[in-house]
Amino acid sequence: MDGPIHRFGSLVRQWPAFRCALVELMGWRGTFIYVSTAAASLDQLCINVVRGLSIDAVQKANSGHPGLPLGAAPMATTLWMRHLRHSPKNPKFFNRDRFILSAGHGSMLLYSLLHLTGYNLPLSELQNFRQWGSKTPGHPENFMTPGVEMATGPLGQGIATSVGMAIAERFLAAKFNRPNHELISHFTYVICSDGDLMEGIGQEAASLAGHLGLGKLIWLYDSNHITIDGSTDLAYTENVADKFTALHWHVQSIDGMDPEAVDQALIAAKAEKERPSIIIARTIIGFGSPNKAGSQKSHGSPLGPEELALTKEALGLPLESFWVPDHVREAMNASEAGGKLETDWTTHFAAYKSEYPDEAALLDRLIAGELLAESVTWPEFSAPIATRKSSEAVLQTVAKAAPTLISGSADLSESVFTDIHCDSRQQASNPAGRTMCYGVREHAMAAAMNGITLHGGCRAVGGTFLIFSDYCKPSIRLAALMQCPTIFLFSHDSIGLGEDGPTHQPIEQLAGLRAIPNLNVMRPCDANESSVAWLLAMRSRETPSLMVTTRQNLPILTSSDIENHPAHRGAYILNEDADPQVCLLATGSEVSLAVAASEKLRAEGVRVRIVSMMSTFLFDHQEASYRESVLPKSIPTLSIEAASTFGWAKYSQAQVGIDHFGASAPASRLFEEFGFTPENVAAQARALLE
Amino acid sequence: MDGPIHRFGSLVRQWPAFRCALVELMGWRGTFIYVSTAAASLDQLCINVVRGLSIDAVQKANSGHPGLPLGAAPMATTLWMRHLRHSPKNPKFFNRDRFILSAGHGSMLLYSLLHLTGYNLPLSELQNFRQWGSKTPGHPENFMTPGVEMATGPLGQGIATSVGMAIAERFLAAKFNRPNHELISHFTYVICSDGDLMEGIGQEAASLAGHLGLGKLIWLYDSNHITIDGSTDLAYTENVADKFTALHWHVQSIDGMDPEAVDQALIAAKAEKERPSIIIARTIIGFGSPNKAGSQKSHGSPLGPEELALTKEALGLPLESFWVPDHVREAMNASEAGGKLETDWTTHFAAYKSEYPDEAALLDRLIAGELLAESVTWPEFSAPIATRKSSEAVLQTVAKAAPTLISGSADLSESVFTDIHCDSRQQASNPAGRTMCYGVREHAMAAAMNGITLHGGCRAVGGTFLIFSDYCKPSIRLAALMQCPTIFLFSHDSIGLGEDGPTHQPIEQLAGLRAIPNLNVMRPCDANESSVAWLLAMRSRETPSLMVTTRQNLPILTSSDIENHPAHRGAYILNEDADPQVCLLATGSEVSLAVAASEKLRAEGVRVRIVSMMSTFLFDHQEASYRESVLPKSIPTLSIEAASTFGWAKYSQAQVGIDHFGASAPASRLFEEFGFTPENVAAQARALLE
Repeated sequence: MDGPIHRFGSLVRQWPAFRCALVELMGWRGTFIYVSTAAASLDQLCINVVRGLSIDAVQKANSGHPGLPLGAAPMATTLWMRHLRHSPKNPKFFNRDRFILSAGHGSMLLYSLLHLTGYNLPLSELQNFRQWGSKTPGHPENFMTPGVEMATGPLGQGIATSVGMAIAERFLAAKFNRPNHELISHFTYVICSDGDLMEGIGQEAASLAGHLGLGKLIWLYDSNHITIDGSTDLAYTENVADKFTALHWHVQSIDGMDPEAVDQALIAAKAEKERPSIIIARTIIGFGSPNKAGSQKSHGSPLGPEELALTKEALGLPLESFWVPDHVREAMNASEAGGKLETDWTTHFAAYKSEYPDEAALLDRLIAGELLAESVTWPEFSAPIATRKSSEAVLQTVAKAAPTLISGSADLSESVFTDIHCDSRQQASNPAGRTMCYGVREHAMAAAMNGITLHGGCRAVGGTFLIFSDYCKPSIRLAALMQCPTIFLFSHDSIGLGEDGPTHQPIEQLAGLRAIPNLNVMRPCDANESSVAWLLAMRSRETPSLMVTTRQNLPILTSSDIENHPAHRGAYILNEDADPQVCLLATGSEVSLAVAASEKLRAEGVRVRIVSMMSTFLFDHQEASYRESVLPKSIPTLSIEAASTFGWAKYSQAQVGIDHFGASAPASRLFEEFGFTPENVAAQARALLE
Repeated sequence: MDGPIHRFGSLVRQWPAFRCALVELMGWRGTFIYVSTAAASLDQLCINVVRGLSIDAVQKANSGHPGLPLGAAPMATTLWMRHLRHSPKNPKFFNRDRFILSAGHGSMLLYSLLHLTGYNLPLSELQNFRQWGSKTPGHPENFMTPGVEMATGPLGQGIATSVGMAIAERFLAAKFNRPNHELISHFTYVICSDGDLMEGIGQEAASLAGHLGLGKLIWLYDSNHITIDGSTDLAYTENVADKFTALHWHVQSIDGMDPEAVDQALIAAKAEKERPSIIIARTIIGFGSPNKAGSQKSHGSPLGPEELALTKEALGLPLESFWVPDHVREAMNASEAGGKLETDWTTHFAAYKSEYPDEAALLDRLIAGELLAESVTWPEFSAPIATRKSSEAVLQTVAKAAPTLISGSADLSESVFTDIHCDSRQQASNPAGRTMCYGVREHAMAAAMNGITLHGGCRAVGGTFLIFSDYCKPSIRLAALMQCPTIFLFSHDSIGLGEDGPTHQPIEQLAGLRAIPNLNVMRPCDANESSVAWLLAMRSRETPSLMVTTRQNLPILTSSDIENHPAHRGAYILNEDADPQVCLLATGSEVSLAVAASEKLRAEGVRVRIVSMMSTFLFDHQEASYRESVLPKSIPTLSIEAASTFGWAKYSQAQVGIDHFGASAPASRLFEEFGFTPENVAAQARALLE
């Protein structure tokens, strides 16, 4: 460490940082901000090398965020060098600690650490930061870069997803660990920012984590007092420590620039078993930059060549770009330690296997991603039933065939029907329970579901009313982007919910969700299709599924052969007359309406084809010949869906839909008023024919 | 009030409520829960008549939520009878207190109060609760019912919108009040539930309100310890009082069943000038129902005829449906007091007018809804500029012409360009500032913007990056449903943002937003169209506007005659050859691409029409002949938009779009990789022709 005289000299040379430190000395709980510029110790040098790589890459890309890496490098490097248990040569080592950079804009911090600790991320990738095809995109993406656990950038998503990872860890530990066999035991670490904590999703997640008492969840809050618009005093003045205490968190406030303080705080956080931990680490954004430290100017733009040089000088780094001395590389490389960690774990697992062969076999299967038993007898239905109810029945079968399926809802378990009957509700006192009570926190729920699924070994299903999918849209999108096969289940899928009125009736939700790339939105038309939807959702490996179900009963219209059901192809001909003149294309509850309308048309001699389209996503992925065979251009097509017609012109020449908000009245009245009657559908079909 | 012996007798007869009370006596901060069944005083009778009307209406509709009205009637009735300053005969009286039932499922509580205090909501409407065409929809809707300030139901929206109303009140007060002229001075009251406070948007709103020190905002938290899934212990165990203290709120915890305690708490809350107030009122859901009180069973279903009868008996009410004794009606009717309130205010205003004629004239205009000066010189542009920058320029003009326009962003003011340069940032110490710093709280921002706009006298504009419109979608939807002309402004509207990558690049956002009924989504193709968009947004009275702008520069392609610009019609022919063979239909930044492609096509002798479609919403509202003239079926049309093709088949036979996620790279590279080059567009047009 630097001596006090040298330290003072540094302070004088670094006026902005010094001023910032002075302000802090006076104002911030008396904590002394350690300001260092030269690398007196190897640890400090490692920190500065992380800084150097990060600002070099941002500068070379001429785009990116240098401020966070400069300020958060001490805590991140300390965490990675002294605490994180991981295996760079096998980023998927099952019992690794999870690390999430929730403040994803600081991606270069993470890339620098991945590179230096030995992941397959060569320096050339860092030099290619933010370029087409590189493994170092602007924000971290799990599907691009080894060692990145999830995609971050949209604020709050990382911390909320971390809650799901911690849930999964504790759940699997409770399920598989045995006396003397702590097979599953890891921490979930997060570095987050003011923005993460201001976001509603982040606050929901914090409340949920505190309620659940997730003792192995540790958030490092990079508290630099700066947001994009300026000081956090502009908009964010709450007492974070007191708030987290009220949420039942273990709270520590430290000097985030001091590696020893970070180390001690991490030790204390890990020792705390009953509560999640937040370490409020006071940092200086852009630390080292003489003219931008402590200011939003260092946040989101390259430092510029001159300031970069001054910063390196202040940090005691050579001017050379992407400079990594061998002894730093050696000190930070975690490949060997990680390999040993993995070997020890494998040895341990072998011992466990001999004592608990059944559990071990299951765990083996789960680690391989095989969550579902090989043979499942998918429920078949023959009597009318609401698809939310048939879905509930299928869920019970799936829950038995997939013993690590975790289901839940945002306080609507008895409406959406998400409870697993053969299991109990998960609570701090019952971590092995498989029914989650997420509370009225749709957004954090969806993100936590992603975390449960991304963790591996588990799969999450859950949801709320379809209308409130709006509240969790960003996390649904992120699941699709991350290729994370979370299963979203939304009931009350149309005006069929009736009296609750327009605030509760989805209109444009299906369109908005179907427009998300890599999301399989399924709207089953009867209970058998709902069984198919579950089958497809459970078998999906890289695509999240979104099932919507009805509140109201629906007749059974389709095959009970779930494994070979034509709905696997998204859309199919339900029935037809020879040489059909008109096609009625419908989804969900409107398929039975199409059937009723077809009877009227047939009575008049019109030859009809009926197509059930459970999933536009699946249908769009069929070969062209199949699509053309189901919906040939030669047959005029009327689509029918009790929702916005937005998007349907792709498949139909005319639409029966709802391009306005709903209303409060009994459902039958609404269907009538909005034209969802066999008479009107038949009339629209006739009009199309003419 | 009941004597203690009578009270004990009631307890014994009402076992569930008694048990609940006992639990509370032991567990809940030692507060004594007052349990009363008979109406000993007129106040108590009024409370019970409110309860009776509410449960009768729910029963008659055979649908609805009796639990909240039964539990929250004491506090609501006390607030309305002793504190709320309003004028039932003129629900729009400008200086009225605002009241929001954030827990909108308890709508019958509000309807009962509106009816009894003298609003134009006759008993027949209560008897028609939740029926087609009634003024009493399942959840409150401001556009259906006099006296309802906003639509509620989606949880958290009410409390977040209330923050905007309180901002508007304080802003107008700061702007117009003068010594001895407290012309604008009212409270904003809210009744909210566990669900409101659990929602992320609610937490964002609480943090923002605490930061802003909104002293005249008062939330009554109906803390009944019950959510739909059961006890709040299942998922919500945070220390609410401590949390709100940490957020800088004035916090009181009271027995919400005791009108005197409610009264005293309201007096104290009103006396607190520097901080918003939350009154944590411990209540008993379904109070009075012998078998359902204190349980989720009373939440969302009618009590049933038998339980209804037992409840009325326990409350000391006759069995008669919709019973209102004359003396209750008389005691609760606020028409006369409200009329006097208004007369006094008008007298006061007249005095003000003589002293401050200019201010009074402006206020008159604002109250009439005329926010914009009659004559505005809309900025014209001739040099290339990003539409986010041209929008910034137009904003400055609008800010001068509309002196109560309040602009802001979610911590991106220097990216979205939302600052009003001629004015200052609003803070607790500067309530008249017109630039809001909402913090990284997109959802609460959008709701607060609705509140500012709904309040009257002000208009809100603000936003973030287009991708993060996902975070505030529920509030955007609610603006559209409420016919509230909030102006949403989203920049970085495509992959044109480049290096930040797929988490930041909107793909499906435009489709999802365009699918919302009554929302005018505008994507200007150049700076002049951005001026048109602002003009249309400011003139809209019942439709929210949503403008999306580019990060990158765009050439000027369209007319500088803003008042008579063809973009007023949503879409129009930008230019064309005689007898065009193919139509290139584009929006925003892709219009200049279409122009470049047209040059290639024309060089090959292809005759081209170019259509700029700034707004599908406006275009869809044109008469059929105009629409047909712009996009006739006879001309094959290729649409071009750097976003999902979802929805475009309505207007075009082929599309150039992006039906996958974006990527991190410089924008020019992305446009090239994703086919947004003149060469590819021309090739697609040729393919369409063949």
